[in-house]
Amino acid sequence: MDYIKIVAPVTISNLSCGFDVLGLCLDIAGDEIVVRKIEEKIVRITSMTGADLPLENQKNVAGIAALALLREWDTDYGFEIAITKKIKVGSGMGSSAASSAGVVFAINELLGRPYETRELIRFAMHGEKLASGSAHADNVAPALLGGFTLVRSYDPLEVIRIDGPEDLFATIIHPHIETRPADARSVLKHTVTLAHAAEQWGNLGGFIAGLYTKDYGLIGRSLSDKIVEPIRGVHIPGFDQLKSAAQAHGALGSGISGSGPSVFALSKGEATARKVGLAMSSVYQSLQLNFDLYISPINAGGIKIHEKR
Amino acid sequence: MDYIKIVAPVTISNLSCGFDVLGLCLDIAGDEIVVRKIEEKIVRITSMTGADLPLENQKNVAGIAALALLREWDTDYGFEIAITKKIKVGSGMGSSAASSAGVVFAINELLGRPYETRELIRFAMHGEKLASGSAHADNVAPALLGGFTLVRSYDPLEVIRIDGPEDLFATIIHPHIETRPADARSVLKHTVTLAHAAEQWGNLGGFIAGLYTKDYGLIGRSLSDKIVEPIRGVHIPGFDQLKSAAQAHGALGSGISGSGPSVFALSKGEATARKVGLAMSSVYQSLQLNFDLYISPINAGGIKIHEKR
Repeated sequence: MDYIKIVAPVTISNLSCGFDVLGLCLDIAGDEIVVRKIEEKIVRITSMTGADLPLENQKNVAGIAALALLREWDTDYGFEIAITKKIKVGSGMGSSAASSAGVVFAINELLGRPYETRELIRFAMHGEKLASGSAHADNVAPALLGGFTLVRSYDPLEVIRIDGPEDLFATIIHPHIETRPADARSVLKHTVTLAHAAEQWGNLGGFIAGLYTKDYGLIGRSLSDKIVEPIRGVHIPGFDQLKSAAQAHGALGSGISGSGPSVFALSKGEATARKVGLAMSSVYQSLQLNFDLYISPINAGGIKIHEKR
Repeated sequence: MDYIKIVAPVTISNLSCGFDVLGLCLDIAGDEIVVRKIEEKIVRITSMTGADLPLENQKNVAGIAALALLREWDTDYGFEIAITKKIKVGSGMGSSAASSAGVVFAINELLGRPYETRELIRFAMHGEKLASGSAHADNVAPALLGGFTLVRSYDPLEVIRIDGPEDLFATIIHPHIETRPADARSVLKHTVTLAHAAEQWGNLGGFIAGLYTKDYGLIGRSLSDKIVEPIRGVHIPGFDQLKSAAQAHGALGSGISGSGPSVFALSKGEATARKVGLAMSSVYQSLQLNFDLYISPINAGGIKIHEKR
């Protein structure tokens, strides 16, 4: 096998109560990545369609992630990478994670799978470090593993994968303003009150319990964030209105997707998720803001292989 | 029915990764509480054996909790309460919670159970407020509900009860020094770093996942605390040695029980829990410190009724 084409999915990180630790994989077709073996022992990004991103390995999240893998798994050949970006950069929908996770997944396939999928997380994290300044795993882990993921620990890295309830759907709305993840991170405070932190870990625990017990109400009530949302939310146009609209139309809960500006809601059932999407769209229509809207079930499988030969 | 005798159990709160939200009920016989209906419409604590505690309702955690319940559920009769304290005050083993939870449980029985057991948590919390200055529920909830409890939210109060794996055993060692919970709370910092907080909610999530999946290793790895333990641990004699001894003898993990000074370890199997107990005992024997040692499975039932008529 010397050719592979994969599609790396949209992911939602943080999920309100789990800053830097929680993530969710969606069934929205994301970045298309083609990787070919080449004789020359180098990694070369040959094209980048749909986004104005550098092709140099050291400046590109996919290049950085690929090199991290190949520093550890030596080969006497190389790879050419072509990326079609479908997830907008700076949207809060895991754009950098899709490219980072996608390329290491694809190369691992071409290498004959020397690594289990979950071992690829640490390579993909190098891409995240380039994108946001922080080697977080809460997008790359769900992109690779599918479902919900919890980063129990970063040092050593331990990721727990959890299935969500089957009838859970996400609504994501992406207003067309760009936030660079590094900027979104720099606005955060370095300290939080112990009271807010304890409230947050109560909610995180409730969220995890809700996933295992398939308790939709508990999942929704746990989507609470007094730490990051009050700081980042003010930079998202119509944020409070979006949340109110989601709640009024039956969403279990809502919050900022990743570092924003996209806003997500979780709902029980596709019909409710669509109603919530319409209500959130109305908010941006009335504000005369351009946006994209997505409705998706949970993607249990992560990255999809479209072709290999 | 106008007489009841109950035994309220020892509980471990915080459990390293869940300050103010996690708790665990043990099968160690705790405070014995006898409550009788009396004609006079008052609450009277008639005796308090085994501890030097005030009998006045307003100064006693059991009295405060009983009055909180009876403010809401009016009767034309009253109650006499006799308490035999078996759990040492200031031990970190849920002494105040046992009395607070025990008395509201007993009165609720005599009233004909107008409240479900979980509804009694909020009355018992009044006792905790008197004892520590903070109306926390992480001891009274497991005392009432048994098993593991997670306070998902304090406002509104929502408690999730989770069964642990069947072969999980706790070891608790109580050095004979007294720490008042209010003192133990006052040494805490009001702020924590966002990095430590995120690490803590990763561990809390891991702990909850470990309970649901019966993953002993995950439960153990999640018993980590960089927020409270470094501050309170220095006040506990031989703390680091106790933790090392527990780890060396096969414990899954260990930490401070409640606000200390008791130290707990969790182990898979009673035999390991006993070995861990011996190792922890050796630490205090070599330090020439008096202590009590307990080994216990998880108590799934909470408070036990010994007699009613």
